[in-house]
Amino acid sequence: MDILIKNGIVLTIDSQMRRIDNGYVAIKDSQIVEIGSVKDLATIQAKEVIDAKGGIIMPGLINSHTHASMTLFRGIADDLPLMDWLNNHIFPAEAKLTPHWVYTGAKLACAEMILSGTTCFCDMYLFEDEVAKAAYDSSMRAVVGEVLYDFPSPCYGQIEQGFEYVAAMIEKWGIKSNSYNNSDSDLNSLITVAVEPHSTYLCEPKLLIRAAELACKNLSPLIIHVAETLGESAQIKERYGVTPVRYLADIGVLGPNLVACHSVHLTESDMEFYRAFDVKVAHCPESNMKLASGVAPIPRMIEKGICVGLGTDGCASNNDLDMFIEMDTAAKLHKVFTMNPEALDAQTAIKMATINGARALGLDSITGSLEVGKQADIIVVNTSALHMIPMYNPYSHLVYSTTGNDVVVSIINGKVVMKDRKLLTIDIDSVSADVREIAEIICK
Amino acid sequence: MDILIKNGIVLTIDSQMRRIDNGYVAIKDSQIVEIGSVKDLATIQAKEVIDAKGGIIMPGLINSHTHASMTLFRGIADDLPLMDWLNNHIFPAEAKLTPHWVYTGAKLACAEMILSGTTCFCDMYLFEDEVAKAAYDSSMRAVVGEVLYDFPSPCYGQIEQGFEYVAAMIEKWGIKSNSYNNSDSDLNSLITVAVEPHSTYLCEPKLLIRAAELACKNLSPLIIHVAETLGESAQIKERYGVTPVRYLADIGVLGPNLVACHSVHLTESDMEFYRAFDVKVAHCPESNMKLASGVAPIPRMIEKGICVGLGTDGCASNNDLDMFIEMDTAAKLHKVFTMNPEALDAQTAIKMATINGARALGLDSITGSLEVGKQADIIVVNTSALHMIPMYNPYSHLVYSTTGNDVVVSIINGKVVMKDRKLLTIDIDSVSADVREIAEIICK
Repeated sequence: MDILIKNGIVLTIDSQMRRIDNGYVAIKDSQIVEIGSVKDLATIQAKEVIDAKGGIIMPGLINSHTHASMTLFRGIADDLPLMDWLNNHIFPAEAKLTPHWVYTGAKLACAEMILSGTTCFCDMYLFEDEVAKAAYDSSMRAVVGEVLYDFPSPCYGQIEQGFEYVAAMIEKWGIKSNSYNNSDSDLNSLITVAVEPHSTYLCEPKLLIRAAELACKNLSPLIIHVAETLGESAQIKERYGVTPVRYLADIGVLGPNLVACHSVHLTESDMEFYRAFDVKVAHCPESNMKLASGVAPIPRMIEKGICVGLGTDGCASNNDLDMFIEMDTAAKLHKVFTMNPEALDAQTAIKMATINGARALGLDSITGSLEVGKQADIIVVNTSALHMIPMYNPYSHLVYSTTGNDVVVSIINGKVVMKDRKLLTIDIDSVSADVREIAEIICK
Repeated sequence: MDILIKNGIVLTIDSQMRRIDNGYVAIKDSQIVEIGSVKDLATIQAKEVIDAKGGIIMPGLINSHTHASMTLFRGIADDLPLMDWLNNHIFPAEAKLTPHWVYTGAKLACAEMILSGTTCFCDMYLFEDEVAKAAYDSSMRAVVGEVLYDFPSPCYGQIEQGFEYVAAMIEKWGIKSNSYNNSDSDLNSLITVAVEPHSTYLCEPKLLIRAAELACKNLSPLIIHVAETLGESAQIKERYGVTPVRYLADIGVLGPNLVACHSVHLTESDMEFYRAFDVKVAHCPESNMKLASGVAPIPRMIEKGICVGLGTDGCASNNDLDMFIEMDTAAKLHKVFTMNPEALDAQTAIKMATINGARALGLDSITGSLEVGKQADIIVVNTSALHMIPMYNPYSHLVYSTTGNDVVVSIINGKVVMKDRKLLTIDIDSVSADVREIAEIICK
């Protein structure tokens, strides 16, 4: 045995939602090999024993939608109309992007995510190969994809080169996920390359169809922003006469590998298309609130059986990557928005941030829950902080009281990447210094 | 000089919203005596020098509405309809309340608040003298008031005894606040006794009028829940034919000392009454979301010039006392609810949690901002945590990135009560043990 985590409340977040008080999880190589109650624990020889000290042992969180490198723009502009924010602040800052900037911003994001209990993230950005490198260097699990659109990209130039860039990433990282292809021999690998056309309003049908075909061929996720704002829906309606979802259906892009990020403005019929095609949703409540985009009909989607993961979106519109606070916000927002205090209960929020996120990204055969045979993506949450006392119900505390700061251990793919709030795979002083230097250039 | 805090970004949150980079604040006895830039700092002999290490030096936060002792019920029941939650979980637990329980729960709350940067809170509960004691013993500033209603109270029995209980508290704590009586000689005192009838639905007009008269006579705040739920509004409409606010106006209870907690379901005319009578509002967005009560029209109130403070409400409906996360939620909620990304900007959120909270409680002549002559209620926020890097705008970070865990120093009335995350006035191990013991009894 390599690692034994014991003396904690084990929450498996598998289909049985098992809770084992004073439980343990044992890891060999990169995998979970045993889960049980400490009282049944025979003497296990483990290279490393981690005492959870009564805390919660659970699957690492999965951030289903972010733009990691946008940590560089955290708080650069807030409280502004979307177009002012984009055109006068974000786009000018992004025009200066270099591969080094993207790598550095992503590294800061990896550090922040690991410290707050996120062990896997799905990213979309420019110079995405740098994000893959940052995740890989941090020993973090990631789904990465270069953003594709019809106008010239600072990264690849014209779209033809964009597809070449994606092909090169696939070649380099050599990954095909995922759960709908269980014959995969790369299950241990950390990086999954996705195909990521930006949106229906920045991509012509030709691009979208080509992207979908490429994703299908590679059995990789297809990630796209859908129906984020009313403005987007109006634009697509004007251009194609239908909703963004219906448009994607019409051009044949809907499918079980499609992750429709945001999905705020959906009709009943749109949701029926999602259900019929098993489309996945990445819900980003805090970003949607901060940009005043709207409130996605998540309880209704869940009712229909649509798989919904949770994401923070980028740091320019959140402004942090804390998935625990995101769960809290999600659970509260949908209660008040539906005027139903039973909407999106604590367990549902936790599933969104773990197993459903994994399923959305096609990674649920390897991560998202504590099950023997899965990769060991595990966190330990300290429950002795004052805001966690007393404890009647660990699920409640995880959603309504915990913040990322309460995470004391993060393990990814069987490797301890954070212990006692110390990052073990990232030299954070060096990253912080680099980020501050870049921020000074951005301000000029 | 007693204390010198230096090497931080000073945010005064006074009428000029001054920002002094590399600034200092000097304290003598309980008061702020100097604020300035370190470069102009002559040699000051201070008994204690606190290095803010580039962090933010700002006024302590003011929690305008809470039920501190309900930390005991944190997470005991969530995701339930209000009446099920109240009748089957909260009321049965509260039926067991003892003075010791109330003191212990309040002590835990004080510890949690101090650790998360709150230096003053306004409380309503049963056995409230115990809350006053807990705050006093913790060296925390508090506005306290026994909850008054027409049915028998576990604390005082019949309402006549309720008023005797309040009179005894006023006698004991000897405090009349506040800013609308500047002749006050008790400015240094920590405890203000308020008069706190529960609501229009649990108090007959006779009680409300008597409470208002008592508050008026003592120049103390009058705290009441108003228009929290649609059910309440319907009930008052049925009983009196008007809205809760109009009803309070009709019986002559509206005035500048009235703090109308929640104020979710208001008409334009209700808000005009608030404006005309200078009624204050304590806004509790997370509780209103979690209980699916609704969204208070805060941007509209602010537009009308109504003074709005921010509160967490009790831990049974939040489930923490973190005012930084509450600011974040408030700023985001009102953006999406009004579909206006400019609604409730970061500076407005911070004012709600500081100076406007002080004004709501009639304490703005002594706290809520950093100004020479005010009492020293000051916190220091660490800005070197990963989620605070880089920093373009400190106001943005305080609202959108900071959590209570980033607070590294809390000073109340010139006394350092927390430094480097260590509580200096509360033996938290003993309090935690007591709380856990009580929780076990509650579970039985």
